[in-house]
Amino acid sequence: MTNKDARTPASVQDEKSEEAGKSIGWHKAYVEGSRPDLRVPVRQVHLTNGKSVTLYDTSGPYTDPLADTDVRRGLSPLRENWIIARGDTEEYAGRPVRPEDDGLRHTSPRGGLRNLDAVFPGRPRQPRRGRSGRPVTQLAYARRGEITPEMEFVALRENVSPEVVREEIAAGRAVLPVNVNHPEIEPMIIGKRFLVKVNANIGNSAVTSSIEEEVEKMTWATRWGADTVMDLSTGRNIHTTREWVLRNSPVPIGTVPLYQALEKVDGRAEELTWEIYKDTVIEQAEQGVDYMTVHAGVRLPYVPLTANRKTGIVSRGGSIMAAWCLAHHKESFLYENFEELCEILAAYDVTYSLGDGLRPGSIADANDEAQFAELRTLGELNRIARRFHVQTMIEGPGHVPMHKIKENIDLQQEICDEAPFYTLGPLTTDVAPAYDHITSGIGAAMIAWWGTAMLCYVTPKEHLGLPNRDDVKTGVITYKIAAHAADLAKGHPGAQEWDDALSDARFEFRWEDQFNLALDPDTAREFHDETLPAEPAKTAHFCSMCGPKFCSMKISQDIRREHGGDRAEIEQGMAQKSQEFAAAGNRVYLPVAD
Amino acid sequence: MTNKDARTPASVQDEKSEEAGKSIGWHKAYVEGSRPDLRVPVRQVHLTNGKSVTLYDTSGPYTDPLADTDVRRGLSPLRENWIIARGDTEEYAGRPVRPEDDGLRHTSPRGGLRNLDAVFPGRPRQPRRGRSGRPVTQLAYARRGEITPEMEFVALRENVSPEVVREEIAAGRAVLPVNVNHPEIEPMIIGKRFLVKVNANIGNSAVTSSIEEEVEKMTWATRWGADTVMDLSTGRNIHTTREWVLRNSPVPIGTVPLYQALEKVDGRAEELTWEIYKDTVIEQAEQGVDYMTVHAGVRLPYVPLTANRKTGIVSRGGSIMAAWCLAHHKESFLYENFEELCEILAAYDVTYSLGDGLRPGSIADANDEAQFAELRTLGELNRIARRFHVQTMIEGPGHVPMHKIKENIDLQQEICDEAPFYTLGPLTTDVAPAYDHITSGIGAAMIAWWGTAMLCYVTPKEHLGLPNRDDVKTGVITYKIAAHAADLAKGHPGAQEWDDALSDARFEFRWEDQFNLALDPDTAREFHDETLPAEPAKTAHFCSMCGPKFCSMKISQDIRREHGGDRAEIEQGMAQKSQEFAAAGNRVYLPVAD
Repeated sequence: MTNKDARTPASVQDEKSEEAGKSIGWHKAYVEGSRPDLRVPVRQVHLTNGKSVTLYDTSGPYTDPLADTDVRRGLSPLRENWIIARGDTEEYAGRPVRPEDDGLRHTSPRGGLRNLDAVFPGRPRQPRRGRSGRPVTQLAYARRGEITPEMEFVALRENVSPEVVREEIAAGRAVLPVNVNHPEIEPMIIGKRFLVKVNANIGNSAVTSSIEEEVEKMTWATRWGADTVMDLSTGRNIHTTREWVLRNSPVPIGTVPLYQALEKVDGRAEELTWEIYKDTVIEQAEQGVDYMTVHAGVRLPYVPLTANRKTGIVSRGGSIMAAWCLAHHKESFLYENFEELCEILAAYDVTYSLGDGLRPGSIADANDEAQFAELRTLGELNRIARRFHVQTMIEGPGHVPMHKIKENIDLQQEICDEAPFYTLGPLTTDVAPAYDHITSGIGAAMIAWWGTAMLCYVTPKEHLGLPNRDDVKTGVITYKIAAHAADLAKGHPGAQEWDDALSDARFEFRWEDQFNLALDPDTAREFHDETLPAEPAKTAHFCSMCGPKFCSMKISQDIRREHGGDRAEIEQGMAQKSQEFAAAGNRVYLPVAD
Repeated sequence: MTNKDARTPASVQDEKSEEAGKSIGWHKAYVEGSRPDLRVPVRQVHLTNGKSVTLYDTSGPYTDPLADTDVRRGLSPLRENWIIARGDTEEYAGRPVRPEDDGLRHTSPRGGLRNLDAVFPGRPRQPRRGRSGRPVTQLAYARRGEITPEMEFVALRENVSPEVVREEIAAGRAVLPVNVNHPEIEPMIIGKRFLVKVNANIGNSAVTSSIEEEVEKMTWATRWGADTVMDLSTGRNIHTTREWVLRNSPVPIGTVPLYQALEKVDGRAEELTWEIYKDTVIEQAEQGVDYMTVHAGVRLPYVPLTANRKTGIVSRGGSIMAAWCLAHHKESFLYENFEELCEILAAYDVTYSLGDGLRPGSIADANDEAQFAELRTLGELNRIARRFHVQTMIEGPGHVPMHKIKENIDLQQEICDEAPFYTLGPLTTDVAPAYDHITSGIGAAMIAWWGTAMLCYVTPKEHLGLPNRDDVKTGVITYKIAAHAADLAKGHPGAQEWDDALSDARFEFRWEDQFNLALDPDTAREFHDETLPAEPAKTAHFCSMCGPKFCSMKISQDIRREHGGDRAEIEQGMAQKSQEFAAAGNRVYLPVAD
């Protein structure tokens, strides 16, 4: 049985009654794999013409009315048995959690956890790691020729064979980020051979936002299609916020451990040490962080290359490391200790996201010497990580005008042996703060078409403030558009079926189907109802743009109805049909009262 | 004196006191040309560092506090003397306005003008046309080697020499749409050699909206940067709405005369005749419409090519003509009478926008036989129009996946002898109704980079309803982003200065400058204030994204301050500087109370 077959309706396990499903237009369904505990979630859209369309689903158990979710308990650890069954990991006492993990070394009257509830109340657990520090990564398994349940899971999700998944991971062209301490995850894959993925950033800061808000933003982002979420918290309660997010997240969680390490030294970059950093990485790996941004490419000799830039270093991690290098006039401790870091990550299957600390922060600085010097180092680090069987992706810019975008992906693929590229936009102009989801959505679509595997979203608040719930949604939707546009342009198998289904619905005036198939059904329906609120308008054979008297789609339908679908017949019989058309009153639109 | 010199601050005539200008961050200024009545409006942004930035301005006299504008009187006819001075036009009685021009042939109780006020009350005027029907087009003048005041005006606007403008128009690579009956216009140019332009569509429909709303939408769209406006009204009061819009519009107005002609035959496509159409064209030319979409490329033999499409014919004009061709089984009356139409347009200097009636309405239909068959006919019609000295641009799609976009512009340029391309998006996916400004903004930026001269905006309401004021703004801003991103990618001289000024402001924490330089200052300021509302935050050396304790821009500034801008010096002196840095407390951020 091919995977294609595995997704036919017959094998889709419908958890809800068919009637109930139809009434809301879509419902959560599962595609079963080779074992009962391997069930891949999909979004099943029921059309009014009796057909259904199966869409990729990132929303986790939250959209399954039969799933018993409780944010205080966390999601069920669906991968736990797979991990245990491999027999290559062990539970251990783990690193004790300390007050400073939450930035509480210097407790102020205003500091500290707001209330005791903030401590995650879910099931007690011990961290897990590879026995005797052995690599327990999907890369190691793939190289050994093993197809793990995680690989089968993503094969079903992507509608490809498990062997393709294994091959891409083994070659380093794709990563499957799954920390052994994040068993709650629904596995997904990041690689140019697969659907383009979208990451959403959340995170509290010293200035604003709370734990509750961040957990809410995570579930909200995945509801709209975020494939991974990065927790970029920088304020207090970093450890505890992350615990809540991880235990409730169905998608991989990424972090930048440097942010937390900096909090531990009260924001003094020069006080950072390898030991503090390493301790932070272990802390986060034990919690279950699936991928970590590591700015090991910001080397001492590259810092001066940024001196004549228009906007210097705009990456937080990049500037921390640059400040450290300058303060000590020493090579980066991340670069110097990279092999030891690889050993740690391999023992938990934490994936590297090698950070582009010197990415351009303005059109003027795009593709400059600093940026590409760092990229060459990332290529070198990628090869080291591979020796240690650590899955690796490479981060990319930033701010890049359209004509300089392709050079970024081409160079990255060449220098980094086709490791997955993970870009922030890029923003194609600097002049539109408050619309940088759009300035960057343009660049994101293009670079994804050319091979970028995952896009880090940008919200309307970029450069201006912290995104709220609406901004998160706008950012995710914009990036899902960019990703899907790229899937289409890459000719990803099956990608166009979604467009075709929606266009069919549009042409046939099946408004409800058009809404339900939309990336954002709620807003599409709301916009329609704003002009034509009445229920009958949703079955009308026109819309408010042209009105009932004249609709091009309607005329097209009439042409098709009058003249059939066969061109030869049309050409031959057109004169005759023309007469019939006239006989029928020559009406190309519905007569309406005026 | 070169034009570059003409734009130095010294020659900018500042109409407001400098203090007053500074207080609001920007003000309207004028660049004077070779004669006192040739004054090119610009938006002068005053920066807090004493510098100023000059930006292109489409907003007309409405943003000039010294201009005495009154929507009931209309704008002053600044081009009138230029037109008269040429001595090649004459006033004449003109075609009498009839009730059916406003769709009042069959007046119903609910029909008719809502009140007498709706009739435009401004100055009485007679229409004007070329003496003895002679061509009075900018193309004719350019070919004769004449540089008109209109050409000089756009040369100053575009910061190029008037001779370049003349050459591009003479070669047919650019159009300067200026009907002799629209003297209120501030001339602008559309061609790949110039800044990419944006058109905004307005227009009432049978279903909704009023005259007042449409005039308001026009001024609103130009305020945010629309370079031209198309009035696509289809309901009642078409003639009167257009009169109000024209008399108050500082930008070229485009129409689709077929829409009004169809109203005159009560929506019965088969009752359309060449005479009714021609009469409508003359009616609109006398009012001052600057460019008209003419779907003369929808020929009888192409209609069957659409029969197997997913979404048939989605252009209103295209489907009207297809319906007419089928009903009569005859070749299109627009195609058959194209030469006579050229003679009419030449006598008023109405520019052709040759419509793509068979453009694809879905990803599935992109770049198909129907679309390209029509394009070849548009190439043929472009050559005919050129014989009659009629300025011509070519309309383009539509819905096109990214990998098929370039073929569109390349073929159009080849087939249509480099006539300006004017595209609707294209939309790069069908799956995001309510976000089609974004799905299409992606395609628009790309196709403009590759040579499209003007982009027709798409609003969030596309496919769903009529755009309101907010939608118009969102559509215009999105398309200004696409246009400017393309200007950057094309290396348009001066385009990057805007980005550089904004990025400088960002790096130096000049928040007010960043807002004032933004494409949408209001929203940028509002988003900033949402997180950090206090006034001091606008001078703070941090933002709400990272907070005061740690800001990458701040660190970059410190690096630059500590180490200077010269790389050799930096490399040489870095160890020493490092010690100084440590001596200064190693602080890379502002100490703040916590």
